[in-house]
Amino acid sequence: MMNSFGTLFRLTDFGETHGNCVGGIIDGCPAGIGIDEAFIKKELQRRSSGSSLSTQRKEKDDVRFVSGIYDGKSTGAPIAFLIDNTDADPNLSSNYLLKPSHASYVLKEKYGHTCNEQGGRFTARQTVCRVVAGAVAKLVLRQRNITIDSETLSVASIKKEGDTAGAVVQCRIANMPAGCGEPYYDGLDARLAAAMLSIPACKGFEIGEGFAAAKMCGSQYNDCQNPDFSFKSNHDGGVQSGISNGQPIIFRVAFKPIPTVRFPQQTIDYEGNVITYTGNNRNDIAVVPRVLPVVEAMAAMVAVDALLIAGGIKC
Amino acid sequence: MMNSFGTLFRLTDFGETHGNCVGGIIDGCPAGIGIDEAFIKKELQRRSSGSSLSTQRKEKDDVRFVSGIYDGKSTGAPIAFLIDNTDADPNLSSNYLLKPSHASYVLKEKYGHTCNEQGGRFTARQTVCRVVAGAVAKLVLRQRNITIDSETLSVASIKKEGDTAGAVVQCRIANMPAGCGEPYYDGLDARLAAAMLSIPACKGFEIGEGFAAAKMCGSQYNDCQNPDFSFKSNHDGGVQSGISNGQPIIFRVAFKPIPTVRFPQQTIDYEGNVITYTGNNRNDIAVVPRVLPVVEAMAAMVAVDALLIAGGIKC
Amino acid sequence: MMNSFGTLFRLTDFGETHGNCVGGIIDGCPAGIGIDEAFIKKELQRRSSGSSLSTQRKEKDDVRFVSGIYDGKSTGAPIAFLIDNTDADPNLSSNYLLKPSHASYVLKEKYGHTCNEQGGRFTARQTVCRVVAGAVAKLVLRQRNITIDSETLSVASIKKEGDTAGAVVQCRIANMPAGCGEPYYDGLDARLAAAMLSIPACKGFEIGEGFAAAKMCGSQYNDCQNPDFSFKSNHDGGVQSGISNGQPIIFRVAFKPIPTVRFPQQTIDYEGNVITYTGNNRNDIAVVPRVLPVVEAMAAMVAVDALLIAGGIKC
Amino acid sequence: MMNSFGTLFRLTDFGETHGNCVGGIIDGCPAGIGIDEAFIKKELQRRSSGSSLSTQRKEKDDVRFVSGIYDGKSTGAPIAFLIDNTDADPNLSSNYLLKPSHASYVLKEKYGHTCNEQGGRFTARQTVCRVVAGAVAKLVLRQRNITIDSETLSVASIKKEGDTAGAVVQCRIANMPAGCGEPYYDGLDARLAAAMLSIPACKGFEIGEGFAAAKMCGSQYNDCQNPDFSFKSNHDGGVQSGISNGQPIIFRVAFKPIPTVRFPQQTIDYEGNVITYTGNNRNDIAVVPRVLPVVEAMAAMVAVDALLIAGGIKC
Repeated sequence: MMNSFGTLFRLTDFGETHGNCVGGIIDGCPAGIGIDEAFIKKELQRRSSGSSLSTQRKEKDDVRFVSGIYDGKSTGAPIAFLIDNTDADPNLSSNYLLKPSHASYVLKEKYGHTCNEQGGRFTARQTVCRVVAGAVAKLVLRQRNITIDSETLSVASIKKEGDTAGAVVQCRIANMPAGCGEPYYDGLDARLAAAMLSIPACKGFEIGEGFAAAKMCGSQYNDCQNPDFSFKSNHDGGVQSGISNGQPIIFRVAFKPIPTVRFPQQTIDYEGNVITYTGNNRNDIAVVPRVLPVVEAMAAMVAVDALLIAGGIKC
Repeated sequence: MMNSFGTLFRLTDFGETHGNCVGGIIDGCPAGIGIDEAFIKKELQRRSSGSSLSTQRKEKDDVRFVSGIYDGKSTGAPIAFLIDNTDADPNLSSNYLLKPSHASYVLKEKYGHTCNEQGGRFTARQTVCRVVAGAVAKLVLRQRNITIDSETLSVASIKKEGDTAGAVVQCRIANMPAGCGEPYYDGLDARLAAAMLSIPACKGFEIGEGFAAAKMCGSQYNDCQNPDFSFKSNHDGGVQSGISNGQPIIFRVAFKPIPTVRFPQQTIDYEGNVITYTGNNRNDIAVVPRVLPVVEAMAAMVAVDALLIAGGIKC
Repeated sequence: MMNSFGTLFRLTDFGETHGNCVGGIIDGCPAGIGIDEAFIKKELQRRSSGSSLSTQRKEKDDVRFVSGIYDGKSTGAPIAFLIDNTDADPNLSSNYLLKPSHASYVLKEKYGHTCNEQGGRFTARQTVCRVVAGAVAKLVLRQRNITIDSETLSVASIKKEGDTAGAVVQCRIANMPAGCGEPYYDGLDARLAAAMLSIPACKGFEIGEGFAAAKMCGSQYNDCQNPDFSFKSNHDGGVQSGISNGQPIIFRVAFKPIPTVRFPQQTIDYEGNVITYTGNNRNDIAVVPRVLPVVEAMAAMVAVDALLIAGGIKC
Repeated sequence: MMNSFGTLFRLTDFGETHGNCVGGIIDGCPAGIGIDEAFIKKELQRRSSGSSLSTQRKEKDDVRFVSGIYDGKSTGAPIAFLIDNTDADPNLSSNYLLKPSHASYVLKEKYGHTCNEQGGRFTARQTVCRVVAGAVAKLVLRQRNITIDSETLSVASIKKEGDTAGAVVQCRIANMPAGCGEPYYDGLDARLAAAMLSIPACKGFEIGEGFAAAKMCGSQYNDCQNPDFSFKSNHDGGVQSGISNGQPIIFRVAFKPIPTVRFPQQTIDYEGNVITYTGNNRNDIAVVPRVLPVVEAMAAMVAVDALLIAGGIKC
């Protein structure tokens, strides 16, 4: 609940853009996992580094682990980490207006006027914590030869300079053993869906054929098995009745355009006065490619949690 | 976790097709809610009644409440209910083969050979419990004038007699107050996604523009506000940053074709021998329209839970 | 939370004295456990049978399992059970007054006047569900040769006819493997304490030396180990830092006198009018010996849960 | 679960003695609470300051809040805090032997030989995080005029120089409104019991008359009410059926002697070789008085959580 994610492998995170640092606590990581800091750094670079779709703002994300690791290995104790906000601006920006399709209005409704300062919690900055925890989860999965990768499937065409674009990402979990995931309410697909929708700007999730399945007949769709128990197809995307079937788990995630466009939009301030707001150019054009390691991180945490619940990794 | 759904308003259910009854316990229902049994019966009829897409098998779903209600009102104690399986067959059917795209194989992998009897847990029959709990949730929402309805948006074309079809359902929660849902991991959208993916045969979820948002630009997409705080559009589908914004919450759910087709399919038995399997005609052609009250039920439970967590309904 | 107990092995129960039945759902029981109904019946008889300290009211507790069992074995699906209230009185008794040291007043404060009917939830009757779930837990523990037994250590002396008495119970879990229980907040001792305090009339819990430890010096108290890792003493009662150390887990539970005395007490009704209340003679003199299987049941559920979380029993 | 405590108000903590810092994340603190840092500092001083029973080791506990606070008030976002280990020793001490009645052996059994480094997690140092979170909880309670205090009731007599002593602490929560706490499994008494048993060295918990209740008759014990609903006595210690009744909540906690005595004890190393171990003089003689703010902190967190669940504090 709240700012925690996961059952037996669990991230709890904190931090705002206007503070000195963000960070989190990873609880439930099995003991004895090699914490490969170079790998974690690389994952963070995938998230922070620029591309034609990303801002040139430099986020130097040096993670410092402050507990739960001894001699390069996890000890079983909670793993806490900190990442400085080298780019922090202690002055809250744009605090007086309701940014369109942003968290401003709902936060006002949820916490009251006194808390619009909380806006600093609601930025893409928070995802850096997910990437750290996801990287640790990937190190756990590495032991079982389970891999996770993702790619951008599509990006909307930009019509005018300063606009932003939606995108679709596909993710694949390979070598997940059959039998993971709990039936129904804690199914692997249900948990992946919740994990993805929790990422800022995510508006859709589909697994296997997904929405295309709705246009298919059973005779086309069914995944039949060969005498060696292998499957003839993978329309289900590796999950049946909430439980992994040993095939690659393949899902897609839809992201809306980033709300901050770099030309004037008409909005209002907290008193309802009309205001013209122009986003600054520190922001990205689309969540891709920087969201890819975030998608993978959430998938990795779901996968480790399911393995632990199924008893497949011993602490 | 496991066979429970929800945090403060929680359904725990049980039952197999080969048993005498299915049922559940609803915990956390506020005290003093009028338990309108005629309404609940009507919801159950929506799920059980035939249509051109549904089986003619007669499921007479008479629900008996056995606790938590006094003088027609909820008392705050757990509400337990039972529904007899009038149609139950104590002999397990088709137990020896792996039904294509069905739970058989994953259950074998998860619980081992000794448990294939569990198959009786994995049928659409389980959804009757969701409809009962969802109906109670709707009665709670009725107090706040919150309504939930749904419709079939599309059904795949059947190519040959005996085949089955996928479908898309759209659901709408109206009058949900702004400020419900927790940021990020317990966002209203994340919880709705998990709720929907937990329904048998569901393969996709999208909210607001959903996957279409991935083809849009920010300038088209953003939901800007008028001086009276009303919104000029609802591309976000009523949820921003995981929190309701007071607009109708609109989402769509994709269902795959029902796996049981009524002509021969080649599959294998538990030993890997090739077998030809022909589904019997007790089954539906598509999950719609019977899944509509199930979709609404899950949405209603998510909505009540979010209201309770936000303190919007007092017990 | 609420009417559920346990994390991976979890009982959710329901039922009031004025209803037709009580019952519950046991979720998370590993598949393949032989459900020895004769044993469960015996446990229920230990709870219901009379003794010099117990009422002669006859509670015939026939449990009916309605799901999760096939061919005498657990399937991994939720196990639901029902027990009829053969002795039920649909008329609420003594509803208008605040029984001294009973739930009446706090329920009025918590749920409001409309819910004093909930009183029927707050009776020793609820503990029958714990005994059923505890008996199933004992059957799981039997596989690992773990046993649980308890005894009455002391009962207060009755001063006059119709009075009631407090008592102390000691319980012992034998053969619990070392390494179970999570550090700190989910320690085995913390969980046992919560489990015991959740039993009606319980007012205290102590493990090992307990309150006597507060009068001891470290030089007397410390449990030192021999070269074969066996312990020279068991002052800690089998749990250190929340984790089992392989020694017998020994704890004691204090129960207050049953509130219903069979001579006049001055109390008030819901409007504050002074009333003289005399309890009827259907009630017991002390919670012992009938509470013994309840204490053991709670201990058994805690033990199974800790084993499952530690990965010591595979589903 | 694991290293988190609480449901809606929740502390997750981390840190080892051999690391640079300890700390935690407080999630669920209502927005708008004044974070009185002078008060928090005073609570930390109560825990760290010396007395005749405490070590002269100087723990300078300067807490730094790094998120969730703006302009001196909580924002509703997670509150993270760090406390440097000014006294840290990166070299693990006494790592090769099993300290009597300490965590060494159970950690070896739970996590394996590779994890004995985890020992640094299992020290009184962890309780500093509880005191910070408890101080924040007290600031929430202050709004409702709820106060918590505690005192040492007894300390065992030391027989020889270098020995250590057990102790009993009494704690009192005043002005807790009636109606808080969930029936049975999440009763206020059950949660307080678990909270106290989670404190290192705690071996017993009793509420109201506690173990003395077991020697009483109902006629003496029952708390009867006056026409103004006030109570004539408080034998129940403010909690009935798991729910607060508006009277002061009074409970006692038993602590064993600190295991580290300052003269030779015979124990073994991890290979089973007999070793003579003499504790160093950095340790206290008894957990009191330093444990008092820890007891109060746990009580405060339980109280805030119960109030939030009961809807008594709005976020």
